[in-house]
Amino acid sequence: MGLKQQLIQIAKTAQNASRRMMNISSSLKNEVIRDMAFGLIENKAKIIKANKKDLAAARCLKQSKAFIDRLTLSDKRIKEMSESLEEVAQLPDPVGGVISVWRRPNGLWIHKVRVPIGVIAIIYESRPNVTSDCVGLCFKSGNSVILRGGSESLNSNLAIYDALSGAIKKHKLPDGIINIIDTPDRKAVDELLKLDDYIDLVMPRGGEGLIKRVASVSRIPVIKHYKGICHVYVDEYADLNMAEEICFNAKVQRPGVCNAMECMLVHKDSAIRFLPHMCKRFKEAGVEIRGCDITQKIVKGIKHATEKDYRTEYLDLILSVKVVESVDEAIEHINSYGSHHSDSIVTENYDSALQFLRQVDSACVYVNASTRFTDGNQFGLGAEIGISTDKLHARGPMALEELTTYKYMVFGNGQVRT
Amino acid sequence: MGLKQQLIQIAKTAQNASRRMMNISSSLKNEVIRDMAFGLIENKAKIIKANKKDLAAARCLKQSKAFIDRLTLSDKRIKEMSESLEEVAQLPDPVGGVISVWRRPNGLWIHKVRVPIGVIAIIYESRPNVTSDCVGLCFKSGNSVILRGGSESLNSNLAIYDALSGAIKKHKLPDGIINIIDTPDRKAVDELLKLDDYIDLVMPRGGEGLIKRVASVSRIPVIKHYKGICHVYVDEYADLNMAEEICFNAKVQRPGVCNAMECMLVHKDSAIRFLPHMCKRFKEAGVEIRGCDITQKIVKGIKHATEKDYRTEYLDLILSVKVVESVDEAIEHINSYGSHHSDSIVTENYDSALQFLRQVDSACVYVNASTRFTDGNQFGLGAEIGISTDKLHARGPMALEELTTYKYMVFGNGQVRT
Repeated sequence: MGLKQQLIQIAKTAQNASRRMMNISSSLKNEVIRDMAFGLIENKAKIIKANKKDLAAARCLKQSKAFIDRLTLSDKRIKEMSESLEEVAQLPDPVGGVISVWRRPNGLWIHKVRVPIGVIAIIYESRPNVTSDCVGLCFKSGNSVILRGGSESLNSNLAIYDALSGAIKKHKLPDGIINIIDTPDRKAVDELLKLDDYIDLVMPRGGEGLIKRVASVSRIPVIKHYKGICHVYVDEYADLNMAEEICFNAKVQRPGVCNAMECMLVHKDSAIRFLPHMCKRFKEAGVEIRGCDITQKIVKGIKHATEKDYRTEYLDLILSVKVVESVDEAIEHINSYGSHHSDSIVTENYDSALQFLRQVDSACVYVNASTRFTDGNQFGLGAEIGISTDKLHARGPMALEELTTYKYMVFGNGQVRT
Repeated sequence: MGLKQQLIQIAKTAQNASRRMMNISSSLKNEVIRDMAFGLIENKAKIIKANKKDLAAARCLKQSKAFIDRLTLSDKRIKEMSESLEEVAQLPDPVGGVISVWRRPNGLWIHKVRVPIGVIAIIYESRPNVTSDCVGLCFKSGNSVILRGGSESLNSNLAIYDALSGAIKKHKLPDGIINIIDTPDRKAVDELLKLDDYIDLVMPRGGEGLIKRVASVSRIPVIKHYKGICHVYVDEYADLNMAEEICFNAKVQRPGVCNAMECMLVHKDSAIRFLPHMCKRFKEAGVEIRGCDITQKIVKGIKHATEKDYRTEYLDLILSVKVVESVDEAIEHINSYGSHHSDSIVTENYDSALQFLRQVDSACVYVNASTRFTDGNQFGLGAEIGISTDKLHARGPMALEELTTYKYMVFGNGQVRT
């Protein structure tokens, strides 16, 4: 059987399984997820052995230290993966929830009901923990999942997949609820992305290159979890002490994540009072500052921020700083240079706050809080599969509810249309 | 300026306008829509004159009678278009509605708020009324719209567009809220579908060929309003009188629309009691019946239904009929051959009803009612832009609410992440 036929076979089986998932109770799903969590611990030795193969190959290929770190599985990391599954088991089941219900004058009783999306494909890079995280969330929300991880982590992913599959077999659930593409052939992704008759949604998880490639090739709807070029805007009417705490937190607390601040905007009337002390504190924390002309006049000895800086997700202790004329200019800058992820205004002014909330075209818009809160757990939604920077069908943290769609169930007693 | 540059210019302007739409009040939007409705009446003579040009060209090209009928505008049709706009003005504004709101333990107050999608492109064929319907719904939901109609109706569309634009100018609203691509160059569509930096959503409106082409080329998310191969399944436990009324209504009341029944499934234990009288009534109404082997044994003198029949949207007085062994076989047939639009079961049995509701993977699933109710107005949602057969981001009737997305507005008082 050729590659294309093999993939169609997998996708068809996944679709059939997804339709049978509609009949599985929440308690059974939770039991299976707990068994998956246990399966990871039980198969720890096998997983670590497989991971060592991947690590050896990566070292041979002289992969970067960061790459090797992302790839490495330890006892601790496997325990964390297992605990994440336990947490997913404890979350409420989104499937079957009634979004709204109403009765028509002719007696039709219309229910808009949350149902699984169907078949979800996850295309990811070298983090093996994505394998178990995605299986847990997709299974809990009643979807079949097709995993396609980076070829560099194939042995680790297969070992994790085997450990999770035990729970599916134990409970005699349909084949094809969880699937992994086990060929390293790179053409597999292109072929998979053509199967819009069977796969309902693709989520690429990884760097910009991967996401762009998937989005440009796919015939299946894609939800992108893109970069985060997040801003904090310190308004003319900001409480500058609060602004300093928020900006410091947004940049420094964990710079390598998508909801960290990459660019700080400061109103011209706050700049002289705010920037010197703020930048001193940043420098002490090891943050490299790149500023606009005015910033360079106020804070000596810093680099110039280029157009490219304003479009860069540093994911590092680097920050671009720009002084703006007005809240309008701040909003304009964010909408033009940002990535529609998370942006915050610090202000005590009612009108500035409302204008910012309305006009900034981002998934999460904050007043007087750090952008670092954009996260499923911080929002109280539970574990998330990523932060969508798309507008359709989910925006911001994608937790269990965002892995569902809806259908209309209509109850009649003989109604016909006249 | 080349075609590509022209289109980028239009899309950029549309994006800028969409961001300014956030500040426009519901009452102003409604006033503008009422002025648009009036503009159609005021410019009726111009519109009909432009339509005559299109009709003359269509006759020259020997287009079909159905094509010419769809293209023709009369006093009555323009009045209907105007009335549709009046109705949209009266519907509640979906923008700004709070979907949910909660407070976190740290005091963050999170609002999930309905906002416009941004820029919506509509690619359609020769029905000029689509122009005003789409402008009304997109404008009301706060979106900029880019219209690209069939070249055969270009003169009519431009005249309608001009009549609607008057209202935008009168109220000094931003250029680019409503846009029309006025070149007949077919390359324009392909170029437009690449502009995912500016356009948020594409909706193709028309035949299967158009929809497939747009879906396969577009880099922008597409919501498909696809064919409706709708089923009614007459269960073993059906009230056969009710079943006859529902099936007759679903097939005959208006056969040319997407929510009409194309295939009737009958449980083997109901077939002998049900089919003879039902089919007699269909024949009297001029319905051609194509049946499976068993149907052919029960009802004499009918054609055989082929595999192709089961996959065909007739949009005509033709019906395929199949006798099935069980509710499972009915569900399996619907999921395999249907188009995930609208399907109904007629039954007095609780378990059959629940199984059908859960397992049929369609936008609208009915018990004991005609499929003909799948419609924004019939659901009580108001005017719709189409019936989505996709699962993301909207499913079933797409009314005003489905033309919005959401963002999170988060109110803090200095919260930082620890």
